[in-house]
Amino acid sequence: MNLDELTFDENGLIPAIVQDEVSKEVLTLAYMNKESLQKTMETKETWFYSRSRQELWHKGETSGNTQRVSDIRYDCDKDALVVKVLPAGPACHKGTYSCFNESLLDNHADPKENRFHILNELEKTIAK
Amino acid sequence: MNLDELTFDENGLIPAIVQDEVSKEVLTLAYMNKESLQKTMETKETWFYSRSRQELWHKGETSGNTQRVSDIRYDCDKDALVVKVLPAGPACHKGTYSCFNESLLDNHADPKENRFHILNELEKTIAK
Repeated sequence: MNLDELTFDENGLIPAIVQDEVSKEVLTLAYMNKESLQKTMETKETWFYSRSRQELWHKGETSGNTQRVSDIRYDCDKDALVVKVLPAGPACHKGTYSCFNESLLDNHADPKENRFHILNELEKTIAK
Repeated sequence: MNLDELTFDENGLIPAIVQDEVSKEVLTLAYMNKESLQKTMETKETWFYSRSRQELWHKGETSGNTQRVSDIRYDCDKDALVVKVLPAGPACHKGTYSCFNESLLDNHADPKENRFHILNELEKTIAK
């Protein structure tokens, strides 16, 4: 499919839901422009567009916590992506497995450390 | 936590990733304003803000395919949500289990009908 068929917003961005392909946990919601999506498809590692720094951003370039891409799906409206990845380390810049660690509902315990985190750490160690 | 601590965008919206709490598949990316988030928290069913119709939208109100909410998580930047749900039926207005059915990558078969779809259908039937 031609990437021009996707709907990028008024800033040229499309939201990309990054999901662990094994645990299926949602790791991050980030944004891609067309160029970062092309780089993601070419390199099979995640590239995003940083809205705050206004530049392309290769996830893990400095931290080493890259994300290997196994699939990219688009939705019925062609205006959102799910990027399935195998993460080499924490997705969050705060060092946690996922960016979604806090609950808005009172009855939920804080799920800070995901049980799959240890598996990713283990895989990373084995890969060294 | 006070909902005013969340970051809503210039249109007063926050992206809400809807995830099946059992299969962990991502079903939809939708948007909430503060009012729809409050209604979601109060009713424990998903309410969104339709950007095209510019109105609140109770998911399943006409189709019956409501989504029972079990958790709502927010991310490290407080500008995105993951809403964990138990869906009463297809999430997609096109009748599919998830809105993310097509792959951008050539080597992926079209995963149109998710294997968990039948479980949700079964549950819906049992609930009748």
